Amino acid sequence: MKKIDIGKKILGENEKYALENLLFFTKKKKLCLNIISSPGSGKTTILARTINELKGKIKIGVIEGDIQTDIDAERIRATEAPVVQINTEGSCHLSARQISDALKQLPVDDLDLILIENVGNLVCPSAFELGESGKIVVLSVPEGDDKPAKYPTIFARSKVLLINKIDLLDGGQVDFDIERAKADARRLNKAIEIFPISARRGDGMAQWCDWLIKSVEKSAE
Amino acid sequence: MKKIDIGKKILGENEKYALENLLFFTKKKKLCLNIISSPGSGKTTILARTINELKGKIKIGVIEGDIQTDIDAERIRATEAPVVQINTEGSCHLSARQISDALKQLPVDDLDLILIENVGNLVCPSAFELGESGKIVVLSVPEGDDKPAKYPTIFARSKVLLINKIDLLDGGQVDFDIERAKADARRLNKAIEIFPISARRGDGMAQWCDWLIKSVEKSAE
Repeated sequence: MKKIDIGKKILGENEKYALENLLFFTKKKKLCLNIISSPGSGKTTILARTINELKGKIKIGVIEGDIQTDIDAERIRATEAPVVQINTEGSCHLSARQISDALKQLPVDDLDLILIENVGNLVCPSAFELGESGKIVVLSVPEGDDKPAKYPTIFARSKVLLINKIDLLDGGQVDFDIERAKADARRLNKAIEIFPISARRGDGMAQWCDWLIKSVEKSAE
Repeated sequence: MKKIDIGKKILGENEKYALENLLFFTKKKKLCLNIISSPGSGKTTILARTINELKGKIKIGVIEGDIQTDIDAERIRATEAPVVQINTEGSCHLSARQISDALKQLPVDDLDLILIENVGNLVCPSAFELGESGKIVVLSVPEGDDKPAKYPTIFARSKVLLINKIDLLDGGQVDFDIERAKADARRLNKAIEIFPISARRGDGMAQWCDWLIKSVEKSAE
């Protein structure tokens, strides 16, 4: 099966860098989270609001993955957090080597937390370890509550599920059963932490930020 | 550059089947459209409503691509249209060979139009031709109006852009500048047809269905 061999070889190269990155974060006692979702789930809005809410509490650096533009990196720069942009030039996920290169451009020793915004894609990034401490999957309410069942891999592998845009539930225009999404995600992953949030309006951000503070403290021990 | 060679080899195999499928559709004078979007943009809802609105006018068969479940195929079966389910078992896009196999299970001679619902992914399916007559890209309003700029390939390659869930603009809870999305899409693709729709409420479905009827007639000439 030629196709499978090819997959293994590419993954092997990626895993070498992923392991190096993981050892780097462990040695430096830094938390690194890899944020994954479909395009338009609100990753950048979540990042920007999280950075602003945690100002003066924890220092955050960002690695922004995009296929072509630097629209998202510009939005993060407005928060004054250090940010490194990676353009994947068409590729559907970030690689561990790209993260290794980006880390050289971040003032890691001055940071408590490195947040990676992966390319908008619910499928491919879940297969490529970056050496992160954990994955955060974002599912926005208009995408539908069937997504954990339909795209199980990323929900099975994530530390946290952020259910975003819950403000859209108020108008009654969007059908989304939060309990169904939670139950499906927990069926795949007993340990997953779930925070329903609205990064636009602010709902649930305090709980999510508390979790981040505690996780940063644990990494620094 | 080993990686590029591998890409070419896989694409070569895919293109062989894509060409066969294209010749098949041309010979049979059937229209085949490949529908691509992020997860949760509303592809299945659009399909189901399109089939129902065109009942008695044109006969539609569906090929449903999903990573694991048959949730979408069940929703299409409820419309009584013939449907073939392809589970990609983790792969992030449909392949031309899968379409070739699925076509053997559809009553193609009795159909006017074959609609393929690709795996929910705005990136990878755009690189894999299936032999379709054209691509339809769906962008839903909550995903944001920056998506044509951020994911240009699929917008550059599509015949039609469906801007879905425009009913969500009414509440004022979603920022989406339709004119910006249209202008960005047309900058990438002068010929693209754009229909703002709400598959849930019905807005714009008549215009989209008219376009389908005309395109089916043109294919049958």
